[in-house]
Amino acid sequence: MTPLRNVLFIMLDQLRWDHLACNGHPAIRTPNIDALARNGVSFDSAFVQAGVCGPSRMSYYTGRYVSSHGVTWNRVPLSIEQLTIGDYLRPLERKMALVGKSHVIADLDGLARLGIGVDNPVHRQISQGGFDVIDRIDGHGSPDGDSGYTAYLLDRGYTSDDPWRDYVVSGMDEAGKIQSGWFLRNVRLAARVAEEHSETAYVTDTAINYMTSQCEKPWALHLSYVKPHWPYIAPAPFHAMYDENDCLPIAKLATELEDPHPVYAAYLAQEESQSFAQDEIARHVRPAYMGLISQVDMHIGRVVDTLKRLNLLDETLIVLTSDHGDFGGDHWLGEKDLFHDAVTRIPMIVCDPREAANATRGTRISSLVEAVDVLPTILDAIGSDYVGSPIEGRSLLPLVFGQAKEHKEFVISEIDYSFRRVRRTLGRKPHECRGIMIRDARWKYVHWQGYRPQLFDLQEDPHEYMDLGTSTVHQFIRQGFNEKILAWHSTRRARKTLSDQVVEKRTDRAKELGIYYGTW
Amino acid sequence: MTPLRNVLFIMLDQLRWDHLACNGHPAIRTPNIDALARNGVSFDSAFVQAGVCGPSRMSYYTGRYVSSHGVTWNRVPLSIEQLTIGDYLRPLERKMALVGKSHVIADLDGLARLGIGVDNPVHRQISQGGFDVIDRIDGHGSPDGDSGYTAYLLDRGYTSDDPWRDYVVSGMDEAGKIQSGWFLRNVRLAARVAEEHSETAYVTDTAINYMTSQCEKPWALHLSYVKPHWPYIAPAPFHAMYDENDCLPIAKLATELEDPHPVYAAYLAQEESQSFAQDEIARHVRPAYMGLISQVDMHIGRVVDTLKRLNLLDETLIVLTSDHGDFGGDHWLGEKDLFHDAVTRIPMIVCDPREAANATRGTRISSLVEAVDVLPTILDAIGSDYVGSPIEGRSLLPLVFGQAKEHKEFVISEIDYSFRRVRRTLGRKPHECRGIMIRDARWKYVHWQGYRPQLFDLQEDPHEYMDLGTSTVHQFIRQGFNEKILAWHSTRRARKTLSDQVVEKRTDRAKELGIYYGTW
Repeated sequence: MTPLRNVLFIMLDQLRWDHLACNGHPAIRTPNIDALARNGVSFDSAFVQAGVCGPSRMSYYTGRYVSSHGVTWNRVPLSIEQLTIGDYLRPLERKMALVGKSHVIADLDGLARLGIGVDNPVHRQISQGGFDVIDRIDGHGSPDGDSGYTAYLLDRGYTSDDPWRDYVVSGMDEAGKIQSGWFLRNVRLAARVAEEHSETAYVTDTAINYMTSQCEKPWALHLSYVKPHWPYIAPAPFHAMYDENDCLPIAKLATELEDPHPVYAAYLAQEESQSFAQDEIARHVRPAYMGLISQVDMHIGRVVDTLKRLNLLDETLIVLTSDHGDFGGDHWLGEKDLFHDAVTRIPMIVCDPREAANATRGTRISSLVEAVDVLPTILDAIGSDYVGSPIEGRSLLPLVFGQAKEHKEFVISEIDYSFRRVRRTLGRKPHECRGIMIRDARWKYVHWQGYRPQLFDLQEDPHEYMDLGTSTVHQFIRQGFNEKILAWHSTRRARKTLSDQVVEKRTDRAKELGIYYGTW
Repeated sequence: MTPLRNVLFIMLDQLRWDHLACNGHPAIRTPNIDALARNGVSFDSAFVQAGVCGPSRMSYYTGRYVSSHGVTWNRVPLSIEQLTIGDYLRPLERKMALVGKSHVIADLDGLARLGIGVDNPVHRQISQGGFDVIDRIDGHGSPDGDSGYTAYLLDRGYTSDDPWRDYVVSGMDEAGKIQSGWFLRNVRLAARVAEEHSETAYVTDTAINYMTSQCEKPWALHLSYVKPHWPYIAPAPFHAMYDENDCLPIAKLATELEDPHPVYAAYLAQEESQSFAQDEIARHVRPAYMGLISQVDMHIGRVVDTLKRLNLLDETLIVLTSDHGDFGGDHWLGEKDLFHDAVTRIPMIVCDPREAANATRGTRISSLVEAVDVLPTILDAIGSDYVGSPIEGRSLLPLVFGQAKEHKEFVISEIDYSFRRVRRTLGRKPHECRGIMIRDARWKYVHWQGYRPQLFDLQEDPHEYMDLGTSTVHQFIRQGFNEKILAWHSTRRARKTLSDQVVEKRTDRAKELGIYYGTW
């Protein structure tokens, strides 16, 4: 099959699986993402490897599980030796361009140890996780020197020492007073930035300029929106597009609060959970969150139009996904981190324009897939053989081409809550805060370091209300999952400095090399 | 307590725990190692993290388990980002000098990716795993440019294009014909090299010169013998010091061959096992192996004499250990790799000259300890705080000072037999060859990727003859060990680019940084 020329890897930040019209949300309007789903395959059971940005994204970018790439939490540096999407594309003479968020934190200690100073071009490449940064905005803070966004805002008259803070994430109340969108009470105000100057618009403009400028060259672009991640405040008209009545039901039951798992209990006590556990707050915030999603959707329409205009739709693989979801009050929780589907299940749409993909075009695939499968899918689409590399995921193209029906028996997600207040609530040390989720089509099981496990029967209890972690009759189920996690650990690519192909060549070669240790 | 000035970290290669007089061997003579044991602490239950050189040594040098440092087999490069003993000593203004074997393989791909060429001093440092190489001989092959041994031999009249091959590991038979010590039939001949020019003597001379040359400077030296590793041929008089009657009983039972575990069965079929399974071959080789041990012991006496002469015995931590054992026919096996105590249990002697260690001087400690504990022990002795680093071991000094009685509930060892012929025998792919052993005071349990587990009751069956891996009554024992391995995985230091101390400082700091995600 002819490899595809271009890759457009679109990520939204903090987008729940169920907050797209094509995934069944009855009120939200996402016509452009819906159109992508119609033109490609929508994976209905796609899961991230962690419920927070940094670890999850590093799994997308390295194709490896969190325990393997080592970025167990936000702002943990990505170790210098981890190969990323940029490294895998380089031999194919493509750069992995980045517009928007990557959340890659440079391993400055590692670089310093190797004597790689800031004046060395390798420093920038490694610091950026192998991305060729066109414009990097990591969100929820004023962009730094890797973005032109601050200058762009100042040029357009958003005068301030911090235009992001004062315009992009601030609104004006009825009394004419400026209010910060950091606070949940203010997120329904219109952001003071014009929609066409918002982060979402700016990132889209930059991506469109990039694609247009590439002319005949093959390209790969990570278009990585910082929204609908908090601060939840949206620019007009999206700030007022939805109201309380448009929200999905908040998935929570009073029984969840009876004898909760200790880690869950510690999360319930966090301020964000105390806020979002109040229905009126959850229903106040969710419409703003939905507005941000519809805004991104509108701009994705512009991106697809650009591909059409450039006549590139037939030569471009499009992947659209998210780095994790958002509790938004589900399970009495705010924010993310934990393993409920609200957080770990994400949209994943793959549009392969080639004829082979017609077999599944417009269909939904329910087989379990993971974030680590995206990098190998991209490599597969552009004709790179990643098999035997440190990549721990597997290409989704056999599913997209209808050649395979099943992909994975289970998915894995991990947590390290050591940076969170919950660690102190629980009185634990920084290296005692790990948890691992295994989820198959029927069950979700969580193994906690130092605590009893959790278990949910997703068939009987699809909303994960009833923790069967101590249920006597489910003892063998839990034990079976312990064994599956253990077996999964054996499959992780610990040996990352030699490919399987080299191992194959070197197998049983001692005598060839003149080494005899058992010959009489 | 005053930190110690110097470190002498002595390693023998392929030395079994039971092949020292001080560990109960009735025939072998190892007076100098016995003296070290009398002057320090002898750990009776010390285990390596892998049963082959490369992975085991990298666990010693990084303080990390094999799955964590990634060198799953011999000649797998040590990834550029792994911190080693040299990195930990550098801030203390000490180099980790190497004389002898390290088995570190340079991660040339990793260095090339970072643009670190051979002319960059960092290249050498990283290629050598952080060691300051005084003279490196990795054994079982002619030394390369990191050693002066070939020139040394040529200078002394061992004329050949490969004096190592033709003199050091060759003998002369009764007919005056040169025979290769690579072949087991020849290992009882005297090596053609004079004892004082052998590898063991050369390495010792080099180490003595190094220690002597340091004068008043604090130093740390890894004195790493390549013996008694094969080729087993020893120089006179050590080649004839022992005979068949001096061998320990070969630990094997016919019942071991009935319905053997598939991986064990594949190892039984290897040539080295087919040879060593013959009593006459095992008893032919073992006396040579014992001679090599006594030879190293003699030279260790010279090293200790040097410390005395330099008046450094009171200021030097001495650790003596081995990277793994040798089956030598036990369990019908030759060579190593698998998890029997013949391979994974090694001698470990720690001599701390300080008064605090008098409490245990000359005693034996039966608590389980591991190879990964050696690096933290060294760091602890010279006053470095390693806690919170990526090191996964723990200092043994609390045991040495009599402050603690117990150290670890269990030990872990791992295998990746992908480079071995057994992989082909079993029809497996390179990433399907992992096994993990967990051993406590009573049991040894092995979890195999793709195969049933193994279980041995060391109380009832100290020689590990009876595999209880399928025994119905032991189902809960096996299950308990699965859970312990799983819990152990959670304790591995996946986050290696940030210390626990940094995590502590950064915990729950969002609001300080102006980030609000849950405040009304």
